[in-house]
Formats: sequence, C-alpha cells, structure tokens
Amino acid sequence: MKEIAIGIDIGGTNTKFGLVDRAGNTFNEGFIKTHQYEKADDFVKDLAGELKKIISIQKGECTIKGIGIGAPNGNYYRGTIEFAPNLRWKGIVKLADLFKKYFDYPVILTNDADAAAIGEMIYGAAKDMKDFILVTLGTGLGCGFIANGEMIYGHDGFAGELGHTIVIPDGRQCGCGRKGCLEQYASATGIVKTVLEMLEYSYRDSKLKLLKKEDITSEEIFEAAKAGDKIALDAFDYTGKLLGMGLANAVAITSPEAIILFGGLSLAGDYIFNPTKKYMEEYLLNIYKNKVKIIPSALNDKNAAILGASAMVWKNL
Amino acid sequence: MKEIAIGIDIGGTNTKFGLVDRAGNTFNEGFIKTHQYEKADDFVKDLAGELKKIISIQKGECTIKGIGIGAPNGNYYRGTIEFAPNLRWKGIVKLADLFKKYFDYPVILTNDADAAAIGEMIYGAAKDMKDFILVTLGTGLGCGFIANGEMIYGHDGFAGELGHTIVIPDGRQCGCGRKGCLEQYASATGIVKTVLEMLEYSYRDSKLKLLKKEDITSEEIFEAAKAGDKIALDAFDYTGKLLGMGLANAVAITSPEAIILFGGLSLAGDYIFNPTKKYMEEYLLNIYKNKVKIIPSALNDKNAAILGASAMVWKNL
Repeated sequence: MKEIAIGIDIGGTNTKFGLVDRAGNTFNEGFIKTHQYEKADDFVKDLAGELKKIISIQKGECTIKGIGIGAPNGNYYRGTIEFAPNLRWKGIVKLADLFKKYFDYPVILTNDADAAAIGEMIYGAAKDMKDFILVTLGTGLGCGFIANGEMIYGHDGFAGELGHTIVIPDGRQCGCGRKGCLEQYASATGIVKTVLEMLEYSYRDSKLKLLKKEDITSEEIFEAAKAGDKIALDAFDYTGKLLGMGLANAVAITSPEAIILFGGLSLAGDYIFNPTKKYMEEYLLNIYKNKVKIIPSALNDKNAAILGASAMVWKNL
Repeated sequence: MKEIAIGIDIGGTNTKFGLVDRAGNTFNEGFIKTHQYEKADDFVKDLAGELKKIISIQKGECTIKGIGIGAPNGNYYRGTIEFAPNLRWKGIVKLADLFKKYFDYPVILTNDADAAAIGEMIYGAAKDMKDFILVTLGTGLGCGFIANGEMIYGHDGFAGELGHTIVIPDGRQCGCGRKGCLEQYASATGIVKTVLEMLEYSYRDSKLKLLKKEDITSEEIFEAAKAGDKIALDAFDYTGKLLGMGLANAVAITSPEAIILFGGLSLAGDYIFNPTKKYMEEYLLNIYKNKVKIIPSALNDKNAAILGASAMVWKNL
C-alpha cells in the first residue's frame, strides 16, 4: 500500500495542507484561514476535520505515516509554537498535543525554515548532501542548518537564526529589539527598506520614484531591475553584499557544501544570486573560497511549504 | 587489560604526547621539538620512536586503541595538516599516512580546537552535553562546534573558524588577509593589540606604560588588571565585548547549552568571563537570553592538549 505523509504549513494568513508521497508528489491540497481563529483549539479542530476528509478520499489505497507541521517559531523538541509575532495565538501553544487529540499518527513540528531544509534533503536540491544551509528570503530571513546529515536544532530547539546575526553594529532597527540584524537587509522587506533609503538620498531618476512608498515591493524592485533601473540594480547589489557577508560568517562555522536560497526574493534569480556569490567569495576566509555553491531551491514553488513539512515525516521514520 | 589511547598535540614549538586511559589519566608524557624538523617524515620517524618507547613500558598491561592527533590546520577527513602558518612543513602534509608506516592502530587527526572540544565531551566540562561550543583563546581564537552530540567538521573538514568571522567591518588587519576578524580582538594577541592602542591614545596613567611594547603580554595585562590598572580593565572589557558579540552570533546559529572557554586568556577568570557574559547577553536575541552558560574548561591544564587529542580515539571507537 502506498505510504503517505501529511504536510501542514502554518502561515500568518493561510494554513496550507496536503498529502505527499515519498517521491514528493502532492495530492488533495487545501487551506484554511489561520487568522480567522482566535483560539488554537478551534483552529486545530477545523483543520483536523479537513484532514480527515482528504484522508478518507485516499482510504484503502494508502497508509498515513505521520503529520509534519512547519510553523513560525515552531519548536521541534516540544511540538510547540512559541511567541510567534505573526500569529494571533500568544505565548506558548502546544500544537502537536492538540493534533494528537484527533490523530494517532506521529506529529512532528518545527519552524518553517527547518522544514524547508529537510524538504530539500528529502525531495529537493540537497538529496545527497550532509552539510548545507537553507536560507529563506521572505518577509524575514529564515534559516536551517544541516550538519552531518542532521538538522541542527540546538539545545533548546531554536537554532538557525542567521537572520538575527548582527551584520551592521547599530544598523537598522529590527523587530527583535536589536539593531543591524541580517534580515533587516537581506529579505523581501529588507530590499524595500534599501530602496526607500536610496530613493530618499539619490538624485538619480528611477521608475520606482513614480510609485507610492507603500506600493514598493520586492517584486516591483525585481521588475525595475529587469528594465535596467539603476536604483533597483544598486539595491540588489547592496542586498547581495550584506547577504554575502552574513553567509561568509555562517560558512566559517559549519563549512557547508552548498547554500540553498528559497522564498520570494530568491525568485529574482541572477539579480540576487550574482551579487550574493560575488560578495560571499570576497568575504570568505581563503580555505573556503570557490568551494561553496549557492543554488536555488528545487522544490516546486507552489507546494514547497507542504513538501517541507511532510519531509520531516520521512526523515524521522 | 587496560585500554589506552595515545594523544599527540602538535604545536609550532613543541609536540607533546602521552598515554591516556578512558577516565582521562595520563601516563608517560613526553615531548619533542617540532621546529627542529625540516621534514615531516623525519619528525614522524623520531616521534614514532619515542612512542614505541613509552608503549613498551606499558607492554603486557594495556591495549592501545588508537592514536589521536591535534594539529594546527588539521583536517579530520583527510588526516592532513594543510597550509599551517606556524609549522615549517609547507603545503599539504599527509600526517596520518606517515604514522601508519609505524603503527597498525587507527590514527585520527583533527585541528587542535576540535580535539579540545572532544576532550571536554569525553573527560571534561561537557560530559553530558550534546550541543556546545569550545573556544580556545590563545595566540589566535580556535573553535569547535558540537551539535547533536557530533563534531561539526563540515563538508571539507574545516568548519569551526569562529575566529575568522568578521565582527568589525574594515577593522584590524588579520593574518588571513581580511580585516576585522574576531581573533584580532578576542585572543591573547588581540588583547595586547587593544592595550597598545589604548596606551597610544590614552592620557591615563598605567603601569603597562612602564613596559617596553614588545614585553606587553596577556599575562602582564592580567597582572595589571588584578592590581586595578584602569587600562588593563578597559582592555578586558573591550575584549569581552567583541567576544560576547561574536559568541551571540554563534549562539544564533547552533543554540548551544554552553560555551566553554579554554586556553591562555581564559585563565584570567572573572576578568574575561564577566564582560564576555555581560555583553553576550546584551547582544543575544531574546529567545536565547539567560539560557547559555559560559564556563571554563575542566581539563587539567598541563595535559589538556594531550587529553583532547586522545579523546578522539574514544569518540571514534
């Protein structure tokens, strides 16, 4: 009988789910609106109902091996979501336990970037790798470190916050309360901040000046860069410079075979990959130069988060 | 019969060796002068002769389980020393292979800081830890990262160069060719540089001003600090600040249970531990605050390097 994992990706707006086989084919995907639920209990109750529906469609044709959940501030050891700023549920939410009320399958929860890293290892660009780093460039900068073929969760389950290493002492104010964190520069939000600063201080013409400040997004910056807009190109260069610096420091710690870029800003392709590679090589210690690949995610974009979450089930078998 | 590991610590000046039992008791220690040997072959030949002598003393009373070697720029995967700036042997030296000419035991080689980390895990302050960082504060800043109970060697065997993460962009010139590396500030050499800068720019009285520049060492600075010398105390504070910043970034990556400080500068005790703890906590992301211990090495100082090297034999059994 076909073996299937359930993948769940909890986001601030939507929670996506689906069934996934060992080869990474997804079935019966669906979603519910996360932000509609004031209480995590009600959220899990409705989500469990949806999952039971899609499981029943496959009934008799497959065995469910477990449930993998990727969530913001997810803690692998405790199966909890802890103080997630973008969710309505405050404090510590024992999410894995809530699921166990409805299912007998193993429930494995971790943060979304760690799930994406395991997804790359099971289905994606890191199938044969034992040492790599996955970096998600979205609203923030998320990160998962794999060393010796294992996820580095750390002592407390919260390892991998490369986005909160300080690259510019006393730099941009970060939501974490400190200043100069990498994610304030190298993320979809970061590049927008860079462009806004550049527009304020530059006399150069730019089609981005025609937009309202609040309408400038990383996608608009990408479009402008493709059209040769100098401010947009400079913003990608600066973003790649700081990302390259942050990655060079990470390489000095875990010496990975590759760094996989994932998420919204990584879709800008060469515009972000080229400066990141160039500056990372510049900042790297000699012994690491020309050894570390920077490659794009190989997960299907649409289902990447579901794939990542489901991958933990296979990894933990 | 008693099981014994051979520990060898190769330094620029001396190479120390000894027999070590599983509990960390050392026997029959000795040394030869590393820098006397122009060729690695001759060095290994003489060292093998010395080792055979001490093995023969124990003959019939113990079984040798293997040889562990800690060396500057040692590579675990290849058993090589690669481009070590402080040794006379240039390029890549296949040291483990040279030993195999003389012995049938397993030979395990890694860099000195990694060996020290494994030493702490087998005999020392990290016996029950699965996630910790060992930092040696000597001439440079060496580092070993343990995650999931395993050494992070990285893809190429050169992981753990926290000393070469950049903490001050365009800061002090480092021997590696780049600028602002952590070890230029947080090491025995780094604190001397800090004091020399402070003496040059400060009108304050200091007993360190009575010394010739070339006579200022980290030990002299420690003595001055104990006597209440303000420049010496400021230098420890600044060293702890940069070390605290570097460690905070490392914690964000591997989220360790503890950081163990080892080597010359760590012997300054509270003078280095207190500012390092204070500033690390200041720089830490909220989720890590008040969770990570900074503790001294628990290895016997005199034999620490031999212990570290021998520990790899037990770890790899």
